Amino acid sequence: MINFTATYTDQYQLSMAQVYFENGQKEHPAVFDYYFRKLPFDGGYAIFSGLEDLLEILENLKFSEEDLAYLKDQNYSEAFLDYLKNFKFSGNIMAAKEGDVLFPNRPILQVEATIIEAQLIETILLNLLNFQTLIATKASRMRLVAKDSVLLEFGLRRAHGPGGYYASRAAIVGGFDGTSNVVAGKNFDIPVSGTMAHSFIQSYDDEITAFRAFSQVRPKDCVLLVDTYDTLKSGLPNAIKIGKEMEVLGEKLAGIRLDSGDLAYLARESRKMLDDAGLNYVKIAASNQLDEYVIKSLLEQNAPIDIFGVGTNLVTGDPDAALDGVYKLTASNGIPRLKISESLSKVTIPHKKQVYRLMNAKGELIGADAITMREEEEVSRIYDPQEILKSLPVKSYKTEVLLHLVMKNGKRTEESRSLKEIAAYSRERLDSLPMEYKRFDNPHIYKVGISKMLKKEREKLMKKYKK
Amino acid sequence: MINFTATYTDQYQLSMAQVYFENGQKEHPAVFDYYFRKLPFDGGYAIFSGLEDLLEILENLKFSEEDLAYLKDQNYSEAFLDYLKNFKFSGNIMAAKEGDVLFPNRPILQVEATIIEAQLIETILLNLLNFQTLIATKASRMRLVAKDSVLLEFGLRRAHGPGGYYASRAAIVGGFDGTSNVVAGKNFDIPVSGTMAHSFIQSYDDEITAFRAFSQVRPKDCVLLVDTYDTLKSGLPNAIKIGKEMEVLGEKLAGIRLDSGDLAYLARESRKMLDDAGLNYVKIAASNQLDEYVIKSLLEQNAPIDIFGVGTNLVTGDPDAALDGVYKLTASNGIPRLKISESLSKVTIPHKKQVYRLMNAKGELIGADAITMREEEEVSRIYDPQEILKSLPVKSYKTEVLLHLVMKNGKRTEESRSLKEIAAYSRERLDSLPMEYKRFDNPHIYKVGISKMLKKEREKLMKKYKK
Repeated sequence: MINFTATYTDQYQLSMAQVYFENGQKEHPAVFDYYFRKLPFDGGYAIFSGLEDLLEILENLKFSEEDLAYLKDQNYSEAFLDYLKNFKFSGNIMAAKEGDVLFPNRPILQVEATIIEAQLIETILLNLLNFQTLIATKASRMRLVAKDSVLLEFGLRRAHGPGGYYASRAAIVGGFDGTSNVVAGKNFDIPVSGTMAHSFIQSYDDEITAFRAFSQVRPKDCVLLVDTYDTLKSGLPNAIKIGKEMEVLGEKLAGIRLDSGDLAYLARESRKMLDDAGLNYVKIAASNQLDEYVIKSLLEQNAPIDIFGVGTNLVTGDPDAALDGVYKLTASNGIPRLKISESLSKVTIPHKKQVYRLMNAKGELIGADAITMREEEEVSRIYDPQEILKSLPVKSYKTEVLLHLVMKNGKRTEESRSLKEIAAYSRERLDSLPMEYKRFDNPHIYKVGISKMLKKEREKLMKKYKK
Repeated sequence: MINFTATYTDQYQLSMAQVYFENGQKEHPAVFDYYFRKLPFDGGYAIFSGLEDLLEILENLKFSEEDLAYLKDQNYSEAFLDYLKNFKFSGNIMAAKEGDVLFPNRPILQVEATIIEAQLIETILLNLLNFQTLIATKASRMRLVAKDSVLLEFGLRRAHGPGGYYASRAAIVGGFDGTSNVVAGKNFDIPVSGTMAHSFIQSYDDEITAFRAFSQVRPKDCVLLVDTYDTLKSGLPNAIKIGKEMEVLGEKLAGIRLDSGDLAYLARESRKMLDDAGLNYVKIAASNQLDEYVIKSLLEQNAPIDIFGVGTNLVTGDPDAALDGVYKLTASNGIPRLKISESLSKVTIPHKKQVYRLMNAKGELIGADAITMREEEEVSRIYDPQEILKSLPVKSYKTEVLLHLVMKNGKRTEESRSLKEIAAYSRERLDSLPMEYKRFDNPHIYKVGISKMLKKEREKLMKKYKK
């Protein structure tokens, strides 16, 4: 459906690659970290999404004939174009498990490859992971408040063009149950669903004729949209009539959908009318500019809504336009590298690294991840990378390794995980995170610290660069 | 690059289509309007973008073998699947010219097709037009304040996945000069450009070695990023050295890029240093979370910045997540249709229509568009569709037809317009719009009125439906 070639990148990646190539640096190894600095939605965590898509794309990434012809016209040298003709990504990738809960300023993924290869995949990596992680996080917030209600993603029409394809996938990672997006449903094996549009009802001379037509052709997934004329005076009485007609035919009306007005009030009145008519099995779906706050409010009011259909606010990540994920060089040609800044929060952390999650003896999270040098065996204390006076003794805690080798020499090390598996894993990880990190207002800040060895290395490099 | 098949849609479109099909309504003609209700960015206009892409996709839209196999598993009937096998869009489309300035609540595009065809293209139409129009509008706001400075789009890494592909295109429609996005550059014939990343400089042992390597391999487009270590103490002196070295080799340093700190101050100091060194031809580029407000402020401070590189805030449309464009049924099976609502602003306008732009004798815009029945010959007065007491005599004005037949029986009526042509047209249309509609704060409200005949038709239908 959506095919990526290696020109899905920023032009400067190619320019820099050419310089490395012509300068005899093309085999220089490099290490890059992917991480973000700020949690989206002023929340306490993010949900990692997009990794499977990225790995699949990287395994097959190359420049097409058309790409090479185009680049030739862009004044790249013959020798460099020859290199690009045979370009493939042959590096290693260490990554968090897709679906895991993430926190700022720790490596989510590390790329080890020749500097040209590492650079040429930067844009597509950021493009896919930043977006899906944003949307999976947004979806998970709705899942948190919706508890066991059904959540359906309906956002394709307001998504950012084909970005909607990945939004549908990320919504599932974050806890949604289905999508309206047929192509995403097909390619990612997501349950697809939908009801009917106002135009459908308007195209008939009256509402009940429209309802009846639908119920006869699609009796198995008949959810009637009841607000075209008047929800309680027309939509509900007509839906009830159809529900009764369906019973006679041995079918069951699946649901009604409310799409305007006061959803709490209308849901309660609709429930009453349906129950009074003996249609207590008919579900109530609601839509119309929903987000996590509206869903929370509706359920706090005990609105009897079984299914929430969420569109724009989910697939765009509104009010956050983007996750600020970055891709930073931490070693090249065997030498650790640092990006310095006047603000300690923007100084990178050098070297190949590992990340550990810390737990108490019962296996419960204590609220801290530790970043270490890749080969460090034991960490007794972690240090805040920004507040130099803050540290935490961690010797007594159990640890879980967070970065796994997912790609070796350009090949995936494991079978791809299904979306269902990733979503289930994410649910489990989010469940194990204490509630104070998940609340919407002023969530607890999860600690991310660096080992003493890493701290020393960073300080040494900072001194060197400051000279 | 990005291939669309007809499953790029919402599932309910297929369900409704099946009902129409099984009910003998598949040949029923329908008319749908595309329009939006609210201008993005609290602005006074929007820029229409995405039409060429939509038309190209519609001409080739079909269900693939894989799509059909999938839908078979989704319980659609054999007869309906046979219909889908031969599905193509064979309707007519009337549309505004891509690049034109748009205002709320007037048809931007009208689709006339069988109701199944019209319904099956709804999602892709909204998905493409809503997004590109949002981004082109955002871009045009930056163009307005940037005047003749160079504007480059650098947003792919933070765009919503492959939505970034169309964001790059829409940025050009709205007035940008180039993009960093190579595949968009290739496919849409957009100038591509870029500079270098901090990682490039860090990967060398010192800044000047990095600068020199780049200047030697890419002398024609050498823009040096000067803030990796210290902009004024290291980046500028090193850039000046390289500029001088390039002069000796008969080359010219193209520019420097500032990417952090106080851009106004740093630009001024950099300009001074470059000029003092005799490098007054070296351009200054600036980036780092720019948007129309920051660009405006920088230029009001007379910051000597020649080139602005804009990323996230452009390609995501932040702070507006989406344009609220809708697709509403206005006639089916020859009968005008209406969506009623308690709010007059949400009541649709029935019938096939035409839209006229009104001008005075000199051809200057008077600030009003008139919506009429398609065949009305003359309009003497227009009526506010929401405020029933407001009307405006318009007999004395010149008119320009705004909706053109762009697709007839599923085939485009004209050669596709190049992106350059569309961008030039858009610039011209925006130039002709008086400044009061373009200011950021409380812009003047452009009037959109309906003809007397249309008003009567709408009122008649409203009465009928209220019964």
